[in-house]
Amino acid sequence: MKEMLRVGVIGLGCRGTGLLQTCLLPQKDVQVTAVCDCYEDRRDRAVQLVLDAGQPRPRALADHRVLLAMEEVDAVVITASWDSHINLACDAMNAGKYTALEVGGAYSLDDCWKLVRTYEQTGTECMILENCCYGRDELMVLNMVRRGLLGEIVHCQGGYCHDLRDEISQGRENRHYRFRNYLGRNCENYPTHELGPIANVLDINRGNRMLTLVSVASKAAGLHDYILREKGADYDAAQMRFAQGDVVTTIIKCARGETITLRLDTTLPRAYSRGFQVQGTRGMFMEDNNSVFLDGRDNRYDYSWKERWNSAEEYRQDYDHPIWKAYLAEGIKGGHDGMDWLEFRAFIEAARANAPAPIDVYDAAAWMSISCLSEQSVALGGMPMPIPDFTNGKWLQRKPWME
Amino acid sequence: MKEMLRVGVIGLGCRGTGLLQTCLLPQKDVQVTAVCDCYEDRRDRAVQLVLDAGQPRPRALADHRVLLAMEEVDAVVITASWDSHINLACDAMNAGKYTALEVGGAYSLDDCWKLVRTYEQTGTECMILENCCYGRDELMVLNMVRRGLLGEIVHCQGGYCHDLRDEISQGRENRHYRFRNYLGRNCENYPTHELGPIANVLDINRGNRMLTLVSVASKAAGLHDYILREKGADYDAAQMRFAQGDVVTTIIKCARGETITLRLDTTLPRAYSRGFQVQGTRGMFMEDNNSVFLDGRDNRYDYSWKERWNSAEEYRQDYDHPIWKAYLAEGIKGGHDGMDWLEFRAFIEAARANAPAPIDVYDAAAWMSISCLSEQSVALGGMPMPIPDFTNGKWLQRKPWME
Repeated sequence: MKEMLRVGVIGLGCRGTGLLQTCLLPQKDVQVTAVCDCYEDRRDRAVQLVLDAGQPRPRALADHRVLLAMEEVDAVVITASWDSHINLACDAMNAGKYTALEVGGAYSLDDCWKLVRTYEQTGTECMILENCCYGRDELMVLNMVRRGLLGEIVHCQGGYCHDLRDEISQGRENRHYRFRNYLGRNCENYPTHELGPIANVLDINRGNRMLTLVSVASKAAGLHDYILREKGADYDAAQMRFAQGDVVTTIIKCARGETITLRLDTTLPRAYSRGFQVQGTRGMFMEDNNSVFLDGRDNRYDYSWKERWNSAEEYRQDYDHPIWKAYLAEGIKGGHDGMDWLEFRAFIEAARANAPAPIDVYDAAAWMSISCLSEQSVALGGMPMPIPDFTNGKWLQRKPWME
Repeated sequence: MKEMLRVGVIGLGCRGTGLLQTCLLPQKDVQVTAVCDCYEDRRDRAVQLVLDAGQPRPRALADHRVLLAMEEVDAVVITASWDSHINLACDAMNAGKYTALEVGGAYSLDDCWKLVRTYEQTGTECMILENCCYGRDELMVLNMVRRGLLGEIVHCQGGYCHDLRDEISQGRENRHYRFRNYLGRNCENYPTHELGPIANVLDINRGNRMLTLVSVASKAAGLHDYILREKGADYDAAQMRFAQGDVVTTIIKCARGETITLRLDTTLPRAYSRGFQVQGTRGMFMEDNNSVFLDGRDNRYDYSWKERWNSAEEYRQDYDHPIWKAYLAEGIKGGHDGMDWLEFRAFIEAARANAPAPIDVYDAAAWMSISCLSEQSVALGGMPMPIPDFTNGKWLQRKPWME
């Protein structure tokens, strides 16, 4: 086990810079030895952050191949754009660096297979940085499911419901890749925040798998209306037609018979939600009113559920996941309500030990494939699409996540 | 305009008897002159209810054809089983009786067309009794939409989320048709409670129409688990395999580009909800936490929406629908939070005047067709199904509902 993990960061936009500050530089067992981005201003900012943290000056590189050739890099964190990060991850695995890959949907099944094949050929571990798998609610519900509280699980829902109209329309100026994606594509473009935790609840790639999906998109009206109001009719993007439907609904069917409903909802005014719901034969969790319904206990509230809104809080003591109980005791750190920190601890500890990735390429490939599959389903009017078995049958005997 | 409407009721199960008591016998302008059911015990009970209400003894009939031939019947309320009520409604239209038809999904497109063709050939009006179209929340949201508060509407959701495990499993003993439906069919079997109000919001058949749907069903686990626990392994239905998936998700695409998501969720433990959501370019309504989000007003609660749960109540004064404001002033009557009463007032007044049905055969056919279409889509793994235009193009010029 390495005492100190030497990390290179590739991709220094908003997310890469944020993670550097909140989840890498504060770690006692991490040294950031290299930072890489094609923009100089971003590299300079990153170097300064490393220096401010009291670490030696890292190498600042425009070419990721130079970073991947550095002996002083044990592990790589890839926080680049959706269209570059899978290739970068494969390059990193080929270079023998323990790899972490930020989330985002895939553009093709071939890219997903490439991730799997590169892992299988190199034996280098690669973790997808799906922070919501470490969310407090998500882990509490996983714990409830594992302990049988909700019975046999039948249906799950989730969503990436996040008003991004400001970010997307600013993308015109600030080089954010979401802008060009919303102009050109129409799909479930960001499935993993909700799907990751659901996949863990349903043992996807670990005793179960996703078989098929259908996706249907609404019209695209939200961004245009927003840009007209906020930027005016003379702003060039006010004349552009966005391909991306405002709400994309996807239904996935699993080998054990469960259904999963996903909702992408990022260009209309609304409050943030991951719309998490887990339903079994003995009970149900619903994020949007933070409730737990248990059969035999809550049935008398059938027509007065308002009285039980927020009832999930009653389950914290018995069902908060052990890693969250320990974490709450020591104090929450990092961004996104603390889940980024837990995710990075899992990554850093696995990388120091060169242990199997906490969330691996099979999960990454399966979860990210939803984007390109949904794109084709939407284009074909909701036609069912087969979801490949990226494990090639290994799902039949792989052990459940975090068990 | 008739002073008094003479009504015959066909189908005296739980729903027919309930409506007789709460929405027909208390009306000052209705006389119940005939009651009809194939079971004698139900007829006897109905006759007694009419007598108890101080009305003359109605005719009690086992054969609906005798009822439809009675001169003393102006209008017919059909509250029979899902598999008989469309034929009964067509017989009633052919007999020239102003017809009201309780809800339920259709078994075939042909039955939906029969309803439309019979209306077009006879000119006899037929109203589908979709009470939720008169719900207070549903009409408030319709009022918000009509007045532009939510902007251009892009996506709607709804569900029939109602734990019916007790009713369905009792169906083995009490002749309820849900039992045999859950044994043999797998579909969105009860779409109209949520779809009716959504169709009104989206001007379906009135400037818009539903084009296609996809449906995917989860496995069927809830009823079996419930029957084993509640009735024991020796109960005969404990050995039966139910075809009906516990959760069926349906996505409908409309001509103007909106999507509608429906959820049938009746065999798992949960609280009642119609899961109503309406989302536009300027705002959103969500039933499950009773909230209204308005762009420019609520954005600061993006990550603290809990503070705005129940915010829909703030809109009552300005946006409760005029017919609800008047109704609240005079006092709520009848079942289902009062919406049954409003629905029956609409029916009775239209029937007395022989005016167009408040919700007509085109709506009935389109809404009920979702069941048989979803059945085929589920069976084909979520294949998109075309939804017929039952208006044959008249939707392009029909006026919005209740405008």
